[in-house]
Amino acid sequence: MSVKTKQSYATFMKCRECSAEYPLTRLAICNECFAPVDIIYDYDSISLKPFDFHNRPQNIWRYKELLPLNNNKNIIDLNVGYTPLIKCKNLGEILGLKNLYIKNDSVNPTFSFKDRPANVAVSKAIEFGDKVIGCASTGNLAGAVAAQAAKARLNCYVLTPLNTEIGKLSQVAAYGANIIGVNGTYDDANRLAVLASEEFGWNIVNVTSRPYYVEGSKTMAFEILEQLNWQTPDQIIIPVASGALFCAINRGLNQFEQIGLINNNKVKLNGAQASGCSPISTAFKNNQKNITPVEKPDTLAKSIAIGDPGDGDYVLALSKLTNGRVDDVSDSQITEVIKLIAKYEGIFTEPAGAVTVAMAQNMVKNGQLDSDETVVCCVTGNGLKTTELIDINKNLFKISPSLDSLIDTVGGINNA
Amino acid sequence: MSVKTKQSYATFMKCRECSAEYPLTRLAICNECFAPVDIIYDYDSISLKPFDFHNRPQNIWRYKELLPLNNNKNIIDLNVGYTPLIKCKNLGEILGLKNLYIKNDSVNPTFSFKDRPANVAVSKAIEFGDKVIGCASTGNLAGAVAAQAAKARLNCYVLTPLNTEIGKLSQVAAYGANIIGVNGTYDDANRLAVLASEEFGWNIVNVTSRPYYVEGSKTMAFEILEQLNWQTPDQIIIPVASGALFCAINRGLNQFEQIGLINNNKVKLNGAQASGCSPISTAFKNNQKNITPVEKPDTLAKSIAIGDPGDGDYVLALSKLTNGRVDDVSDSQITEVIKLIAKYEGIFTEPAGAVTVAMAQNMVKNGQLDSDETVVCCVTGNGLKTTELIDINKNLFKISPSLDSLIDTVGGINNA
Repeated sequence: MSVKTKQSYATFMKCRECSAEYPLTRLAICNECFAPVDIIYDYDSISLKPFDFHNRPQNIWRYKELLPLNNNKNIIDLNVGYTPLIKCKNLGEILGLKNLYIKNDSVNPTFSFKDRPANVAVSKAIEFGDKVIGCASTGNLAGAVAAQAAKARLNCYVLTPLNTEIGKLSQVAAYGANIIGVNGTYDDANRLAVLASEEFGWNIVNVTSRPYYVEGSKTMAFEILEQLNWQTPDQIIIPVASGALFCAINRGLNQFEQIGLINNNKVKLNGAQASGCSPISTAFKNNQKNITPVEKPDTLAKSIAIGDPGDGDYVLALSKLTNGRVDDVSDSQITEVIKLIAKYEGIFTEPAGAVTVAMAQNMVKNGQLDSDETVVCCVTGNGLKTTELIDINKNLFKISPSLDSLIDTVGGINNA
Repeated sequence: MSVKTKQSYATFMKCRECSAEYPLTRLAICNECFAPVDIIYDYDSISLKPFDFHNRPQNIWRYKELLPLNNNKNIIDLNVGYTPLIKCKNLGEILGLKNLYIKNDSVNPTFSFKDRPANVAVSKAIEFGDKVIGCASTGNLAGAVAAQAAKARLNCYVLTPLNTEIGKLSQVAAYGANIIGVNGTYDDANRLAVLASEEFGWNIVNVTSRPYYVEGSKTMAFEILEQLNWQTPDQIIIPVASGALFCAINRGLNQFEQIGLINNNKVKLNGAQASGCSPISTAFKNNQKNITPVEKPDTLAKSIAIGDPGDGDYVLALSKLTNGRVDDVSDSQITEVIKLIAKYEGIFTEPAGAVTVAMAQNMVKNGQLDSDETVVCCVTGNGLKTTELIDINKNLFKISPSLDSLIDTVGGINNA
């Protein structure tokens, strides 16, 4: 007998702190205690076997049962997700890891992992009947939301710090969104976004529909598990800004265990920050239960320069619960590791993607990773958005269009 | 009975002009008449049904029977191809086309369609035992070859015009390749690449192993057919530089017809050039059988600024044979269409990708496309490589971090 599965098994929302329950409306935080609310699924009714995925779309909606959309006609079809998990033999040899993988989200439709939450949140916004959407962003989410809005024909406002990289702003401008460039930090932009949602009624997807928004990110965990043939890795290293991705990956692992697609989930979850904005790493090292916000982030890893991370305390708790760690890496190491990943694996990422590989490098040195462990580093963004960090002069040899000039130059390179 | 299929059914090479036959060695052109040689497959022995593709890798090697690699252990695993075919309802409405699709190759591993030929050519270079590879490039191929070389741990030299966009050069530099920046045109760089292959014995993939190299590009046709559920579109519009992609798409369509995966191939193949470098379009309009090279290309579509296209005459012949056209579009239209695609479909491309949609726009206006026809525009490259073409000032509104400043600005936007 063939049983047609439902689109989604989302049933209600539940407060992460006080366990108050709510229907699946556009609720952002718990009415009782203001803590985050999580979407809860009817796990017992979900019957999924590995074989069921064979003929599914090659995007995040292959996991539709565990995503909170009622009707698949509301899906914005930009083909988000199901990005490659690349075995990194060369880079693994350099780092001293025999089973290193990169989850390469630089090839998403707008070239970062932010397409995942944006695809779910903006599709859900269509379901809610919203006409204006927006976000607070360090740049990547702005591109993702602007592209989804373009495809969905919705008005779009993005709030970003004015110092966001020009490559990211250009992309957002091409999609036709209104860019509100805030002369301040991401936290300033985020505060204004909250006010904007109240003042203008905009659906600021990472604020007003956050419980739906964060569900998109957990698909990265689902894909890693499916691509590892339903085996769990030993360690996952995740860049941490607000901490939403970290929490979502934890949730994704637990949900696949709950419905029986994996067993015995003991994955250690590790969070990577930039030293110039490392509130969670600092709290982890000091064994604090709560983070202390960083007022003025100072790092070239602008994508993860969030000084007051909303999910910071949860990242602290979950990293400990899973026997993982949170640490930070310097800007100079980040720049070196961007080139290392590109040079050994042909994968070109921005600073926020390189922090995870840099942290793996440090963890090996510190004896925190065994060479036999299966380690997945999440590469969440694209190097084309931050090309100003690459010095081309070491690689570029200018010649006149003659064979003599070529021979001279090649001789010089070979003798160098 | 389960029959294990062979890795590849490539059997020999055949001159496109004099039909001389050769074994599958590293031959670049016919020894007799210097014309291109094509790889010929044992079509009669290939038995493939749509169902056979269900469990195959989501990359170009799902079509391994029709690719010229003997051993799949030589495949460089960057997960090239199987990019989305996006139904473009919004853009279709603007253009007056009910069934418009974009084949979105901006999400390939190095963010252009050039990953396809580079993946085949560099994998084949491993099979040949080469240690140094290279290419002549307008920028995208340089990135693709450099990344493949990085993953394969081969020495790499790319020859590009010095005026190549900085975004593209930065990417190549990150991958660690040696960039020979030629103070001249692409044709100058290409001539030097031929000399370099002779002088240093380098495998210049788009010269010395061109018959293998061009096979990668036809996978774009295979994917379009599979993604249209094994139906042929009415028209495909292809950006034309050297003409290799155009010829490869024609070959791909014919090969799928030959092995029975599609029937009655009547696809019209159309070539799109930039007006500032349009030798093939000019010859088409003047009803010439041969192109006249353009000495000094002058267009912002640098990826397709090849004045002396190697396959130009073949594009002319094939466009006529398939009842297609070759035309060119202005730089100002290209710039507008980049924004149109981004604004209506959330797809961000570079000029070389926009020429196809611009040509579709013109063909509708000129009555050369019917609104009911199924039209596929190939979007071959990524807008992040040419962000200098986007003026962000129309979309960017700078504010101080206060609600008053936000309200004033939003009011201004709404009243504009």
